[in-house]
Amino acid sequence: MPDRFIPVPEDRFTFGLWTVGWQGADPFGTATRPALDPVESVERLAALGAHGVTFHDDDLISFGSSAAERETAVKRFRSALDRTGMKVPMATTNLFTHPVFKDGAFTANDRDVRRYALRKTIRNIDLAAELGAEVYVAWGGREGAESGAAKDVRAALDRLKEAFDLLGQYVTEQGYALRFAVEPKPNEPRGDILLPTIGHALAFIERLERPALVGVNPEVGHEQMAGLNFPHGIAQALWAGKLFHIDLNGQSGIKYDQDLRFGAGDLRQAFWLVDLLESAGYDGPRHFDFKPVRTDGADGVWESAKNCMRNYLILKERAAAFRADPEVREALRASRLPDLSRPTAEDGLAALLADPSAYETFDPTAAAARSMSFERLDQLALEHLLGTR
Amino acid sequence: MPDRFIPVPEDRFTFGLWTVGWQGADPFGTATRPALDPVESVERLAALGAHGVTFHDDDLISFGSSAAERETAVKRFRSALDRTGMKVPMATTNLFTHPVFKDGAFTANDRDVRRYALRKTIRNIDLAAELGAEVYVAWGGREGAESGAAKDVRAALDRLKEAFDLLGQYVTEQGYALRFAVEPKPNEPRGDILLPTIGHALAFIERLERPALVGVNPEVGHEQMAGLNFPHGIAQALWAGKLFHIDLNGQSGIKYDQDLRFGAGDLRQAFWLVDLLESAGYDGPRHFDFKPVRTDGADGVWESAKNCMRNYLILKERAAAFRADPEVREALRASRLPDLSRPTAEDGLAALLADPSAYETFDPTAAAARSMSFERLDQLALEHLLGTR
Amino acid sequence: MPDRFIPVPEDRFTFGLWTVGWQGADPFGTATRPALDPVESVERLAALGAHGVTFHDDDLISFGSSAAERETAVKRFRSALDRTGMKVPMATTNLFTHPVFKDGAFTANDRDVRRYALRKTIRNIDLAAELGAEVYVAWGGREGAESGAAKDVRAALDRLKEAFDLLGQYVTEQGYALRFAVEPKPNEPRGDILLPTIGHALAFIERLERPALVGVNPEVGHEQMAGLNFPHGIAQALWAGKLFHIDLNGQSGIKYDQDLRFGAGDLRQAFWLVDLLESAGYDGPRHFDFKPVRTDGADGVWESAKNCMRNYLILKERAAAFRADPEVREALRASRLPDLSRPTAEDGLAALLADPSAYETFDPTAAAARSMSFERLDQLALEHLLGTR
Amino acid sequence: MPDRFIPVPEDRFTFGLWTVGWQGADPFGTATRPALDPVESVERLAALGAHGVTFHDDDLISFGSSAAERETAVKRFRSALDRTGMKVPMATTNLFTHPVFKDGAFTANDRDVRRYALRKTIRNIDLAAELGAEVYVAWGGREGAESGAAKDVRAALDRLKEAFDLLGQYVTEQGYALRFAVEPKPNEPRGDILLPTIGHALAFIERLERPALVGVNPEVGHEQMAGLNFPHGIAQALWAGKLFHIDLNGQSGIKYDQDLRFGAGDLRQAFWLVDLLESAGYDGPRHFDFKPVRTDGADGVWESAKNCMRNYLILKERAAAFRADPEVREALRASRLPDLSRPTAEDGLAALLADPSAYETFDPTAAAARSMSFERLDQLALEHLLGTR
Repeated sequence: MPDRFIPVPEDRFTFGLWTVGWQGADPFGTATRPALDPVESVERLAALGAHGVTFHDDDLISFGSSAAERETAVKRFRSALDRTGMKVPMATTNLFTHPVFKDGAFTANDRDVRRYALRKTIRNIDLAAELGAEVYVAWGGREGAESGAAKDVRAALDRLKEAFDLLGQYVTEQGYALRFAVEPKPNEPRGDILLPTIGHALAFIERLERPALVGVNPEVGHEQMAGLNFPHGIAQALWAGKLFHIDLNGQSGIKYDQDLRFGAGDLRQAFWLVDLLESAGYDGPRHFDFKPVRTDGADGVWESAKNCMRNYLILKERAAAFRADPEVREALRASRLPDLSRPTAEDGLAALLADPSAYETFDPTAAAARSMSFERLDQLALEHLLGTR
Repeated sequence: MPDRFIPVPEDRFTFGLWTVGWQGADPFGTATRPALDPVESVERLAALGAHGVTFHDDDLISFGSSAAERETAVKRFRSALDRTGMKVPMATTNLFTHPVFKDGAFTANDRDVRRYALRKTIRNIDLAAELGAEVYVAWGGREGAESGAAKDVRAALDRLKEAFDLLGQYVTEQGYALRFAVEPKPNEPRGDILLPTIGHALAFIERLERPALVGVNPEVGHEQMAGLNFPHGIAQALWAGKLFHIDLNGQSGIKYDQDLRFGAGDLRQAFWLVDLLESAGYDGPRHFDFKPVRTDGADGVWESAKNCMRNYLILKERAAAFRADPEVREALRASRLPDLSRPTAEDGLAALLADPSAYETFDPTAAAARSMSFERLDQLALEHLLGTR
Repeated sequence: MPDRFIPVPEDRFTFGLWTVGWQGADPFGTATRPALDPVESVERLAALGAHGVTFHDDDLISFGSSAAERETAVKRFRSALDRTGMKVPMATTNLFTHPVFKDGAFTANDRDVRRYALRKTIRNIDLAAELGAEVYVAWGGREGAESGAAKDVRAALDRLKEAFDLLGQYVTEQGYALRFAVEPKPNEPRGDILLPTIGHALAFIERLERPALVGVNPEVGHEQMAGLNFPHGIAQALWAGKLFHIDLNGQSGIKYDQDLRFGAGDLRQAFWLVDLLESAGYDGPRHFDFKPVRTDGADGVWESAKNCMRNYLILKERAAAFRADPEVREALRASRLPDLSRPTAEDGLAALLADPSAYETFDPTAAAARSMSFERLDQLALEHLLGTR
Repeated sequence: MPDRFIPVPEDRFTFGLWTVGWQGADPFGTATRPALDPVESVERLAALGAHGVTFHDDDLISFGSSAAERETAVKRFRSALDRTGMKVPMATTNLFTHPVFKDGAFTANDRDVRRYALRKTIRNIDLAAELGAEVYVAWGGREGAESGAAKDVRAALDRLKEAFDLLGQYVTEQGYALRFAVEPKPNEPRGDILLPTIGHALAFIERLERPALVGVNPEVGHEQMAGLNFPHGIAQALWAGKLFHIDLNGQSGIKYDQDLRFGAGDLRQAFWLVDLLESAGYDGPRHFDFKPVRTDGADGVWESAKNCMRNYLILKERAAAFRADPEVREALRASRLPDLSRPTAEDGLAALLADPSAYETFDPTAAAARSMSFERLDQLALEHLLGTR
């Protein structure tokens, strides 16, 4: 296999500790793999060419650890980071595993739980800042409901806003360089989750006290669980200046959350995603949030971790070749893509209204007869993806 | 049947001319019903107790009509409105039927089409204002793509913003009292449509020059085509102050756009929707955007129009009974709903951080043991819906 | 609440031990409820009016129990059954929880696992027969794959057929009165499961050595996870004489497997399902395979178990009223339902070919003009469901 | 581009006249392309390397044509076939466009419609036989319902069986070499269609008088509209000896029926499909049932037709390379695929029961520890698909 698909830290590939560390318990089965020491994960991922790791508080420090256990765990982790040169560009809070979060965290009906969730988050923000993280992800996987009266959604959004406003106040007062990234998901583990898509999260952020401090962390599979086009969602997040982080993985259509390795699932969307991230100049981490299939042992864990990165690099090369191909450029012109970047009325409203060619003398039938030539353009893309050009 | 489910104009029920007027052509079949005269629609809907009608420009005045034909059509329509007392609270533009819009309207790659689309819209805005409409709906059904390179989504959002900014400038300059309502839809007739959900539309609006002028017009079936909880989406729109209009109908899950009568499809969500609209004090029209099934003749058209309103009234009565039931109130307390409306930290961040009961002495296991009692609450709701209480 | 919705054993309501016994662990969270003693489940379900319970081998006897532990567990269980009069009409095998089944059971690539799975099944068949079960359910939840090369589907179907042929031979040789019921599911916990729908299972059965011995055990949510109409699937199973058992629960559309209580989820399909089961004379158990929501404690467990039965009885009453309503009968005639039960060509092919009124003189336009009047018929059904008639 | 992806008639690629001839009318828009003369389609497809064409009666002879018009149309068509050497391996009936079929054809509630549908079908069977077709496809797109009481599914299946029994009798009596292929689809244009998946169709066929005469004609997008794995469904059809014909196209997930060109949509499933068809020795036509996107003019029509075939040939080459790769063979062994083809109990039931290593001394924990190594196998497949190996 060609050497050019071997990752280096400059590629900014990162992995959650919980990804390679997933033991394979699912709704119908128990763990198929032993627990993994975070230090081993750091070392092996470093050896594979990754840039860094990310973590939930409980990934690193078991829930309910004593202060001493906590200190030891952090120290060992830091030492592995120092030894390997691995970074921690992002951290997040586990607000879903313990039964106390069964009805949510920031929007639990139970106020005690909400207060606890905020304090648990703040505690890990301190550690995240200490470890140099730039982004703090908030996945509200339990913020939702299975039935209509169980959650007053408007009140819940008030509480969610309150939580982000408090967290924003905290990092501001502490002088941390952290920004927040909301991770949307439509459902699972709740029947319906609040802020189900990139769009809902972007809209919510605008109502916060410090909107500039908050962006999104979209995950491939989460949008695809709602049948949405992931690159389209990312494009809107970029357009809004809000793509603070991204979770790369694979999903095969509308079903349970699969968290396949990047490159599995919808290959075509993966291609357009990489094309977009690279051409838009996204400079954040390429973060993999996936689960090595539970049928596999340790071999599959590291094989899949390696291939997440490898597949990104393959698609990156293919997307670049697509954009550089003169025939593609010609096809883009034939499909009038350059025209879309030109304002519709750069001369202003009055000129548009006064222009008879825009309406009075416009011939819709003649205009309709122009082919958009999209079939040819898409075939060129497919052939670049397949490497037959 | 009880008289209490007979609508009156004060209920603010409205219908699109294209709903009762749908002739039944679908992707695999031709029309099963003859065309309906808009005047007949106005008269029959008035007789059924509706408050008003809404229209696309081409519903009232056939595409390509002469000025004289246009004048006649408008005059006849106005006369029917005057005769019946029917209102026109909303109007919209047909930017999807004619082949000229095959690649979109405001975001067509072809600039000439974009300019034409704006002028066509402005022309109908004048008529809408003249007829007293308060809301102008924009459904961008053709703004999208079937393949990845065919649309540069960020450029398309620039064009979409440009269009809404120009339209906002126009109504402002004209002094019209019109506000705009964006109607999201995930797909069909395009493979993926821009602004696919309520969330994406709400987020987009925040980037406009005149965000206050623009809200959303969500449609039951459109959100359900993405598997999203419609009442949750409406709650977020209300929370953002952006529910300017609503399209009521029915949909049976993730599939093609069905536009069933209101009450068909997901009955449980219909109940929670009416509960929400009524309890939130939404005072806009209850607008039906549905299609009488094409298997039926004129009998089914008027039967289904009547039943859209009737079903709303039945659900309204049931939701009110649910909210008034003392046992429900007790169950809501048991599920700690009142607690969710209380701020999490009304005493501020510092107090939260200083409160040991929030974290240091908090016992998550004990808190986790409290039942949320949602099963009982949801059964009470179901029995109110079914009328067994 | 009216007394008429209180179940009695003659209603044949049954529950899996694993339903009320579900502790609430899900892919993102640990158990929220303590384990339940099967004996307590038997007693409480009996008190609620159930007819019986069902079980996986491991529900009753923990995986890896000694012979003595096994004997004790069975003895205690039998004694509870005797004391309460509860029956065990069905049993099944757990071939999914232990990691040994991570790649399937009867179709695991590993032959040792397949042999073990057969023996584990046979062992529990003996117990099932001893306890008087009539149906043995086979849910092959792990028979499937996440990737294309991981499973040769034709070879896997050979193995699946081999397994059912061996099991059929076993019960025949033992003289057991047991019949098998295959339970289809499209996905979860595998990316794609073999025999994903009722249809695939029915078709598979026809290729077995003893097809008469095998039917289906469809589950509401499983078909709805593929967006399929559950009553339609049940109708085809009944039509084929293959509805040997049924799993009743609730599901809110295409997403992860929710296992809501019966009556939650798609209420309209629940109505038509009960209407069909009752009018078709289905005389097997009405078996609930659901999970009390994990937000609730023991209160929610027994509340939801009670309401599964209660909701069935409510819908049964409503469906009966619908069928008995003279206006409904008139509407069915108007929609020409009785005509559908009349053969199309009772006079044979030759007569059809010779009948000019069937083609040569048939006027399709005139025939097309006849309204099917389905809108009225469906509104009558809705109003019976809602209890407004 | 390499010459090796240019089709020849021996590849058995065929196209429906309605595919390249689709004019682009959809639920929200009118035609964007002029009608295409069937003779031009035959000639252009022949020039592109196709093997043949297929047709609905109404594609060739407009609905309601006189006998003379019919004769002329058939004559011109035959002459084009003769001139080009194109074959007609399949034909089918249009039982969905005319409003007379609004409630179905073979299962319309209206018996007159059912009789007419049979006669219309028989008439075209005569033509199909005359033109040398081997397969007669039956897509019952209108056989279904939008509401629960509108169709008695068991009665409808009786009528569907009656129809196929009569058609089977007809071709038998006429001595035609035609076999039938049922085409399943879950929904659209009906809310729910009878025989929604490959499985339901296979099961139905077993209840016919002449099951040997009837197989299936699965369509890529139709199964994917239910979220089902298409290659899995094809594998079951092959396993049952029932894959009589196949419709190749593309679909992007669970939504309206897209009919994209083959290679668009789910690329990974397309790869596994071609791998399966080629390795299973399927020798029927590779039939494309797609719609050139309506944004394109004639250029897109012929471009997409060419690329349907081209993409099949690319995938065929890639699948062959995958199967021939020694590293893949090694990976298949590591994943124990050869083991799956070995009987589980070739020594019979008694030997299995007597084998302590199968149960008594079997160590499930040790067996569970064996990795299935699927991650590596799937990456090898992906890289063959992408052409990086």
